[in-house]
Amino acid sequence: MINHLKIIEILNRFDKENIKIGSIGSHTALQILKGAKDEGFETLVICKQASAGVYERFRVADDVVLVEDFSEILGKDLQDKLIKENVILIPHGSFVEYVGARNIEEKLGVPLFGNRKTLEWESDRKREKEWFNEADVRMPLEFKSPREIDRLSMVKFPGAKGGKGYFLAKNEKEFYQKYKKEDGEYTIQEYITGTRFYPHYFYSPISEQVELLGMDIRYESNIDGLARIPPQVLDDCPIEPSYTVTGNLPVVARESLLPEILKMGDRMVESSKKLFPPGMTGPFCIETICTENLKFFAFEISARIVAGTNLFVRGSPYSQLLYDEPMSTGRRTAREIKIAIEKDMLDRVVY
Amino acid sequence: MINHLKIIEILNRFDKENIKIGSIGSHTALQILKGAKDEGFETLVICKQASAGVYERFRVADDVVLVEDFSEILGKDLQDKLIKENVILIPHGSFVEYVGARNIEEKLGVPLFGNRKTLEWESDRKREKEWFNEADVRMPLEFKSPREIDRLSMVKFPGAKGGKGYFLAKNEKEFYQKYKKEDGEYTIQEYITGTRFYPHYFYSPISEQVELLGMDIRYESNIDGLARIPPQVLDDCPIEPSYTVTGNLPVVARESLLPEILKMGDRMVESSKKLFPPGMTGPFCIETICTENLKFFAFEISARIVAGTNLFVRGSPYSQLLYDEPMSTGRRTAREIKIAIEKDMLDRVVY
Amino acid sequence: MINHLKIIEILNRFDKENIKIGSIGSHTALQILKGAKDEGFETLVICKQASAGVYERFRVADDVVLVEDFSEILGKDLQDKLIKENVILIPHGSFVEYVGARNIEEKLGVPLFGNRKTLEWESDRKREKEWFNEADVRMPLEFKSPREIDRLSMVKFPGAKGGKGYFLAKNEKEFYQKYKKEDGEYTIQEYITGTRFYPHYFYSPISEQVELLGMDIRYESNIDGLARIPPQVLDDCPIEPSYTVTGNLPVVARESLLPEILKMGDRMVESSKKLFPPGMTGPFCIETICTENLKFFAFEISARIVAGTNLFVRGSPYSQLLYDEPMSTGRRTAREIKIAIEKDMLDRVVY
Repeated sequence: MINHLKIIEILNRFDKENIKIGSIGSHTALQILKGAKDEGFETLVICKQASAGVYERFRVADDVVLVEDFSEILGKDLQDKLIKENVILIPHGSFVEYVGARNIEEKLGVPLFGNRKTLEWESDRKREKEWFNEADVRMPLEFKSPREIDRLSMVKFPGAKGGKGYFLAKNEKEFYQKYKKEDGEYTIQEYITGTRFYPHYFYSPISEQVELLGMDIRYESNIDGLARIPPQVLDDCPIEPSYTVTGNLPVVARESLLPEILKMGDRMVESSKKLFPPGMTGPFCIETICTENLKFFAFEISARIVAGTNLFVRGSPYSQLLYDEPMSTGRRTAREIKIAIEKDMLDRVVY
Repeated sequence: MINHLKIIEILNRFDKENIKIGSIGSHTALQILKGAKDEGFETLVICKQASAGVYERFRVADDVVLVEDFSEILGKDLQDKLIKENVILIPHGSFVEYVGARNIEEKLGVPLFGNRKTLEWESDRKREKEWFNEADVRMPLEFKSPREIDRLSMVKFPGAKGGKGYFLAKNEKEFYQKYKKEDGEYTIQEYITGTRFYPHYFYSPISEQVELLGMDIRYESNIDGLARIPPQVLDDCPIEPSYTVTGNLPVVARESLLPEILKMGDRMVESSKKLFPPGMTGPFCIETICTENLKFFAFEISARIVAGTNLFVRGSPYSQLLYDEPMSTGRRTAREIKIAIEKDMLDRVVY
Repeated sequence: MINHLKIIEILNRFDKENIKIGSIGSHTALQILKGAKDEGFETLVICKQASAGVYERFRVADDVVLVEDFSEILGKDLQDKLIKENVILIPHGSFVEYVGARNIEEKLGVPLFGNRKTLEWESDRKREKEWFNEADVRMPLEFKSPREIDRLSMVKFPGAKGGKGYFLAKNEKEFYQKYKKEDGEYTIQEYITGTRFYPHYFYSPISEQVELLGMDIRYESNIDGLARIPPQVLDDCPIEPSYTVTGNLPVVARESLLPEILKMGDRMVESSKKLFPPGMTGPFCIETICTENLKFFAFEISARIVAGTNLFVRGSPYSQLLYDEPMSTGRRTAREIKIAIEKDMLDRVVY
């Protein structure tokens, strides 16, 4: 684990008037960089040649650093450059997936927004479950082995690969028909039927408040296309469902559900303080299903910015209640850094 | 029925410079209070302890009045307090559900935005039907008894319970398999297949115009989750559909459908003037289905603000054509009160 | 084909200080006219009596010209009037459908935004296919005759009728069961299962840049309603699917898909320059499906503004990255005309 004191030392040498916000070019980088610019920061994006054009065309990156492989970010040269340029990096889902939670924690010596211990807790299914239990947030039943499967279940694989490879099974036999050895480690979760809500939270260790900044639904291929093929057609041309995340749809929840939604966010923050002090800071999302009885089941936590926030570049129906200016999660992140600089509290938000 | 003259008398004693906007904490209260603040009003929310945090955290309520039960709003103490503080109450779906249309009409002596007779017409299925017929707005076929069911039908229950308990039946036998005696009174409507549109209208008795302020689709549990389970899976694990409203999704209609959508709104207003003068005022929504032949069927009217407007805290694609400033239905309501105060026409919008 | 030189001549006689933006009242006219007003232009709408109210009520048209039939726009009287009033017409989907691509190209002597040759290429399925091939953009397999159908396929009809009449067939027999002689000419495309994305592009021949301004999903009747009827219910009450476009839903794509999405737009512009110089200019949309393997299939191009842009009257998550002011595709179009007037380059954007 990179020592927090070491990061503070680096931060102390930063030119506070010229801090740059950087990220890896994918996932939510457009929004993060746009938000940083709106808050007055210079911006930097680390990306591969193929996606450089995206960041140039949307005019959000003051500096584009090309890499052949994202692992270069773990090398001394790039880290030295980033530190020299006073860069604070914002992690996101692809950042974690491409670089690896463990690598980030152990080898990435550049100041990072948010407690880096969080990444380990969200990317390890067992710890994630412990965290939900500690927070007393309801989860779907989990089956420890295929033999236990006694109802419709979803078989999932670790990491933020965007749902790729997930499959349904209703018993042991079906599990083994669909599971391939190369799939490796898996989790078997009871399939809960209901409406999906992915609330976007932001916890500020400065204000000590959890803010609800937005909400979305994942738009998945092929399942969201499959739903539009009539059953009589599928009888003759069966197609196996798949759950690759391809985009996001906006949604609001019934207002009477907000107390429960806010409580779940609060509890995940509180319990994180116990499990890995000082706990989770910054943006996070709890992936939930709401049943017909208006009960929420949480089936995952993303303890960093989620892609669904890309819908709300100028704010969501929730952030628009809180802020009279356009406020994306990306901009809220930059705002937090700005406030921390002003209050000399960067050590509370950067790790 | 609370006498309009009595309300006018109360209003006459109000300090017009210090009118407060109040509502019950649920449904669309966040938007209503935010809109009121944007128009320069002080705000008050009446809520239970469990949801007080929501209104505090979103910073929309200047005053939070806690109740143990919403019926307290019918008591003398609370009513006296509200009148003393110059409160105009904004009714919404949960307001009507929690307090009761009849109680509001007969026992709630606090000035209320909109004609209170409207609530009775929208919450009584027979009158609602009479209203649609008078307006010449197409409805699905209605079956008077289970014996008449000769096609796929939806069985519905009265009140704004958000679709809870609704079920499908295609004949008498299926009706009795699913209907439980404790369900009480029901309506049986032909099930129309098509796309759902819930246009949000606002009728101003001051400008005498119906404005189209937005449009949404309800997001219902479990049906919107059920749609994503492949038929071959449901063959083995059948799940009964249910229609509890859990949220809302934004939508726009094909522009060539707008003449028909506006006409439906106009007609409901015109016919309301005949049926219960001076008729419906303020926000309302017609729940519709659009068939493959681009015909609309209206299956319900909500003669007050609907929850789908929560999507449009800073305006919808429709209100953004009309207003160059953020204009939610909640804010439009406060704006109407503001204009009425300026023009000394509060008696036209408050009942 | 109306000669470009003749249009330039007409434009030369226009009073450049008083150019009006006009369109036919349907499809995206509200947004086009609102955008034109926001850019400081006077506006004019040509419409039938039944829809005049829409353009009056949304206060976007300075001038409403009533016609009994849209073919009147091809007559000398109306054309003379439009030219006398310095009108530049903005074509859209219904414009093309009501007036006819060929009629627009050959008989409409009023200055038109965008290269009018484009309309012919997008409305002719064979040329459209040639265009996609030249651009090296992946399309679904096409079957030349019903006999060739060897998998689930969609049978489509030419023109912008909004999907009306489209049907599924998985073999020759099913094709002939569903096809009616009066349906006329058809295209048979392999049915690709996945998530639909309709990116809205804008190519400026002045800046020589393709901008991504938004993205939507079509909301179709009855299929999007059919998807919500459980299979066990449809077993007893089978309903044939249909695909009439009735509205649009907002969506964002996974950020890592943007390089591919931008590349498709770039290539369609580049290849259009070869196939029909100076090529496509202004707004366009590629109708795509994204498979579970994150591959895009393009099944159509709309080489003019699409109805999905109506969602984004004050901008989409994409245009909001590019512009710090509300920027719809309609407004971007008016902005392009404004820039062209300032730079004396109207001949590059008007044909």
